Amino acid sequence: MLSDPTDFAAWRQAKQDEVEQALSTWVPADAPAGLGEAMRYAVLDGGKRLRPLLVLATSEAVGGSHGAALRASCAVELIHAYSLVHDDMPCMDNDVLRRGKPTVHVRYGEAQALLAGDALQALAFELLVPGDGSVSSEMAALLCRLLAQAAGASGMAGGQAIDLASVGLALDQPALEAMHRQKTGALLKASVTMGAATGSVPAQALEQLGRYGAALGLAFQVVDDVLDVTADSATLGKTAGKDAAADKPTFVSLMGLTQAQAYAERLLDQAHAALDESRLDDTAILHALADWVGRRAY
Amino acid sequence: MLSDPTDFAAWRQAKQDEVEQALSTWVPADAPAGLGEAMRYAVLDGGKRLRPLLVLATSEAVGGSHGAALRASCAVELIHAYSLVHDDMPCMDNDVLRRGKPTVHVRYGEAQALLAGDALQALAFELLVPGDGSVSSEMAALLCRLLAQAAGASGMAGGQAIDLASVGLALDQPALEAMHRQKTGALLKASVTMGAATGSVPAQALEQLGRYGAALGLAFQVVDDVLDVTADSATLGKTAGKDAAADKPTFVSLMGLTQAQAYAERLLDQAHAALDESRLDDTAILHALADWVGRRAY
Repeated sequence: MLSDPTDFAAWRQAKQDEVEQALSTWVPADAPAGLGEAMRYAVLDGGKRLRPLLVLATSEAVGGSHGAALRASCAVELIHAYSLVHDDMPCMDNDVLRRGKPTVHVRYGEAQALLAGDALQALAFELLVPGDGSVSSEMAALLCRLLAQAAGASGMAGGQAIDLASVGLALDQPALEAMHRQKTGALLKASVTMGAATGSVPAQALEQLGRYGAALGLAFQVVDDVLDVTADSATLGKTAGKDAAADKPTFVSLMGLTQAQAYAERLLDQAHAALDESRLDDTAILHALADWVGRRAY
Repeated sequence: MLSDPTDFAAWRQAKQDEVEQALSTWVPADAPAGLGEAMRYAVLDGGKRLRPLLVLATSEAVGGSHGAALRASCAVELIHAYSLVHDDMPCMDNDVLRRGKPTVHVRYGEAQALLAGDALQALAFELLVPGDGSVSSEMAALLCRLLAQAAGASGMAGGQAIDLASVGLALDQPALEAMHRQKTGALLKASVTMGAATGSVPAQALEQLGRYGAALGLAFQVVDDVLDVTADSATLGKTAGKDAAADKPTFVSLMGLTQAQAYAERLLDQAHAALDESRLDDTAILHALADWVGRRAY
């Protein structure tokens, strides 16, 4: 167990550094005609690496393979990074600022941004099947399946399609939640299940880890909607207030600010409860990650 | 061996039908908010399915698993289809016609086209790891690796980046070939190596199959450049003359029409020779596919 929050901060920093180093190794600098530069710009030195941290923490909680978990953590982050690159493009959200820097298409042009996103998705899957014996074929195939399902039409991409179609519509809460369970929730939940897949987990624990991931994923989005209203662009590192400006339904527009904040708390309580019910020995870091999502200030 | 060309035509038709049926089953109609419709529009009822045919023919030549080969053939076609969707977008080639129909972004809007391409790539990898025991984990992991390498920065996406950067430049033949070996060649070669991966192949045969795939892949591009000059849009099902209009270097602009036609023939001779040297028993269909690439009239 973590004896105090500074342990978590130290763990987090160490893992963020390890992920950054691994991404820097695996995202190719030598890809041709500027593609590698655009890919690295999109991925490196940015973000809090929540998804990789979830993979690594879950893997540790189940005594999983660290080598496989590091690959899985980077693969999930590459999918996340590619989705941001494509999401920011003019035909989607048309955003110019991300993590405090010009977005990839602003920096490198739309065509290169499109290709960089595409290449990052391919690289994510390539990382999971190294072919050097460091990840067993069974584990590699399972990790690929979990990631592909989370990224595709029944996961993230499908959620983005719903998001596109929902601008200006009066979604009710179940519809808004369904969208976010796909758009951001699927990949966050997959971060947990992929971490679990690097070890061996009793069915009971796997189910509860799934509940943890799903609750945390939805809480993350509710917090995001709250911050879109309460924080400024400098703090967020991206354009604040853009959901309201785009007339997109959010948990805040639906429930009001106070209720949305309370809802995020309830979801995080569910995440903590699921961990307790998993009966895994050491879930302290996973608990701390849920707290971190609740108080993050992007 | 094929006793006459009608055997090949019958084989081709049967396999095209089988691939069409499989794609129709696997590309989801129920993906949300119009995404499934856009994905199916991009994939179904279009193209000659050269890549799937290469996978299936190679698998047959090595006595491979038909179930795995059918999944691999569809996975390769999904990568090809997504690349066309993204390639046609306004920020890339800005093309309005593909296979005789409006391009995906013309029909469904740019944002949906972007997402459909993204989801098709994820689906390609999902198909390779069914998790129902129908494809062994070893084979699934190998197929994922071959596909990811062919699709990503060191393959197709990298080739497209070179293509983007080469507009208006006077590439010499080695540079032009290097671009096409990545842009179209990598996925065509992977179609062959993935087909081989569904069975067990002596190292000698695998090397020669790789040579066959590489020569055929480059021949395909040279033929494409020839047709861009000699065929009209109705025959091509896409905009004719667009390479010249875009000031893109082609084998025809570099070598002249007659020399380019002769070069395609030489490459196809290399493909046939590699098959002969593979010492595989039944390469008649693979020989016929090389002939077909030479005389295709899109």
